[in-house]
Amino acid sequence: MATVPLIEEETASAEVRAVFDDIRRVRNTDWINNFWRALANHPPTLRRIWQGLKEVMAPGALDPLTKEMMYLAVSISNGCQYCTASHGAAAKRLGMTPEMLGELIAVVGMANQTNRLADGYRVAVDERFENLF
Amino acid sequence: MATVPLIEEETASAEVRAVFDDIRRVRNTDWINNFWRALANHPPTLRRIWQGLKEVMAPGALDPLTKEMMYLAVSISNGCQYCTASHGAAAKRLGMTPEMLGELIAVVGMANQTNRLADGYRVAVDERFENLF
Amino acid sequence: MATVPLIEEETASAEVRAVFDDIRRVRNTDWINNFWRALANHPPTLRRIWQGLKEVMAPGALDPLTKEMMYLAVSISNGCQYCTASHGAAAKRLGMTPEMLGELIAVVGMANQTNRLADGYRVAVDERFENLF
Amino acid sequence: MATVPLIEEETASAEVRAVFDDIRRVRNTDWINNFWRALANHPPTLRRIWQGLKEVMAPGALDPLTKEMMYLAVSISNGCQYCTASHGAAAKRLGMTPEMLGELIAVVGMANQTNRLADGYRVAVDERFENLF
Amino acid sequence: MATVPLIEEETASAEVRAVFDDIRRVRNTDWINNFWRALANHPPTLRRIWQGLKEVMAPGALDPLTKEMMYLAVSISNGCQYCTASHGAAAKRLGMTPEMLGELIAVVGMANQTNRLADGYRVAVDERFENLF
Amino acid sequence: MATVPLIEEETASAEVRAVFDDIRRVRNTDWINNFWRALANHPPTLRRIWQGLKEVMAPGALDPLTKEMMYLAVSISNGCQYCTASHGAAAKRLGMTPEMLGELIAVVGMANQTNRLADGYRVAVDERFENLF
Repeated sequence: MATVPLIEEETASAEVRAVFDDIRRVRNTDWINNFWRALANHPPTLRRIWQGLKEVMAPGALDPLTKEMMYLAVSISNGCQYCTASHGAAAKRLGMTPEMLGELIAVVGMANQTNRLADGYRVAVDERFENLF
Repeated sequence: MATVPLIEEETASAEVRAVFDDIRRVRNTDWINNFWRALANHPPTLRRIWQGLKEVMAPGALDPLTKEMMYLAVSISNGCQYCTASHGAAAKRLGMTPEMLGELIAVVGMANQTNRLADGYRVAVDERFENLF
Repeated sequence: MATVPLIEEETASAEVRAVFDDIRRVRNTDWINNFWRALANHPPTLRRIWQGLKEVMAPGALDPLTKEMMYLAVSISNGCQYCTASHGAAAKRLGMTPEMLGELIAVVGMANQTNRLADGYRVAVDERFENLF
Repeated sequence: MATVPLIEEETASAEVRAVFDDIRRVRNTDWINNFWRALANHPPTLRRIWQGLKEVMAPGALDPLTKEMMYLAVSISNGCQYCTASHGAAAKRLGMTPEMLGELIAVVGMANQTNRLADGYRVAVDERFENLF
Repeated sequence: MATVPLIEEETASAEVRAVFDDIRRVRNTDWINNFWRALANHPPTLRRIWQGLKEVMAPGALDPLTKEMMYLAVSISNGCQYCTASHGAAAKRLGMTPEMLGELIAVVGMANQTNRLADGYRVAVDERFENLF
Repeated sequence: MATVPLIEEETASAEVRAVFDDIRRVRNTDWINNFWRALANHPPTLRRIWQGLKEVMAPGALDPLTKEMMYLAVSISNGCQYCTASHGAAAKRLGMTPEMLGELIAVVGMANQTNRLADGYRVAVDERFENLF
């Protein structure tokens, strides 16, 4: 299964190799997973996505594990197999336990259920919920 | 906008009122929002969803704020307006700041972006990502 | 809220009026709802969709009410407000009671919940479920 | 493909085995499919989902085959492979014929098509479709 | 992986063979891909979808390559593997280069990202964007 | 309807005003639409999204109108009202006619229909469609 070849280090352009190097450096690993090697078929996308991801997932008001688990929750909800597998692994690396995964999946399931109940009954937003901040 | 009437306390059955009472007790509020008053049109659903939600959102391996923010992240990703508004308010009550909301929305957006990149290139799951636990 | 004007009978082309006439005849009504008047901005789409819908929703191995409720279930699941409202009305016309709607929405919610549980755990399809027919 | 191990009867806790027993009893089968064996990694989810599913899918204002076909329709629409396979098998067991499946899939396709036409033209809900019940 | 058998030319009904012949004629090929052979299990769907697709994808105000790339963009966004593969091949046949695919996937990813940002912040539609035509 | 206030020029930080200025310059307009004014509540997101959008939507192997129509197609398919309205307006500014919009919406509808047919029948990807490039 593949639309494009996975770009190997040896045949990569200097631009692609620079991004691969940065991924390894930031993640403290010697390994590049398939996602980045697929994106390397379109170097501007590879560079832009990696820069954006680094920025969005950096520690901030939310810690990296919380962000990674949110990312996983959204990926599961969207039915994206690759991202469910890769961000599941990333969250585990950051400390997600099987019990935390179990609760995360339960929340994703429950949210998907009540989202459709609200849409099915076409429930109007309560005045109190407007203008949150 | 509405498919069904919002059930008022006064005209509710004893079964419905019992659930409303429990919602007020658990949430320490005197107010029932539209979602529950719409669900009250089908009492078995009202009861089942409230019981399930109480169980799923209780403190566990994940704390209530983290769960509420995940719920919000999924609801945004699904484009559910009502749940985005109501779970936004719930997360705020539990301590979510504007900065945390900003980062949460950024993660949701990024996950939706890379989910489609992975699907667009039909990237195969790396062997290392299998059998997480 | 609108992207295009809603086409009025008086200003419609002969092609559009012929479809409107057929809708009124088949549905035994004197009224054309907004969906068709929006589609009338692109007459080939109006004609094609009406012909297709007539064919798909006709009595067959499934009766019209069952089909209409399935249509409604899918529309709710997709978060399409217009279709939730219009196919809700159509199902009611064919005999859907408030109790049936309550059960329908409960099924839609449950399916959305377990769909994500299956995707979250990346459950492999059991051999017994292959080659259904 | 898997995120978690599929729990075997022999190594399951008493809590998990009790749910497995109930599934076999209610479904009159000696077999537990992968979905439940994956959920057994998080026993509270296993128990809650099974209880909820039993309640939602029981005969009521809608018969079990109609409910099962709705479940299948939603699962197809969501692109959930596992649920499409498992609920397809369940609907077949309850009497769904190939002709009924053909019509069901046609309805799901048509609903997905018109959902996007309505959203694309941003069609406003007709006054007559409000306040269904 | 399959719900239904793929219908072979030899065992197909005259009705199915007529559609297969038309597909080969219009596409100038001697080959029928799996999608049509699966749809052939329900001949009215096979005929209706093929007629609709022929009409929608014909040259018009938009050229066939633009239409095919839009079809691919939507299929990627929906996470439909089969359609991503088949419409990717169709777009390539019509002239889509790797560079064009790279830009297409980047647009799909970006749109999915900003769709959720707009939904997350619940941004109201600007007055200037109403009544487009 | 709103989760956050729309940031006004006068009260914006220098960082936000710099992005607003760049938007006006690139788009040759004196107007900032609600999307950017909502994003301005989280300046790093405002900056990152605007930079990314500028890059992705610039002329390349695909021309700006084709990209804008793809963006619109995906936004419609996702049911994002705001993006359907705003990218509809953007595509019109670049030359999209009512006829082109009609064909675009027809393609989006058809793709959503056949995506679910392929998923409903669980059609396996043809060998010929693998390894596109």
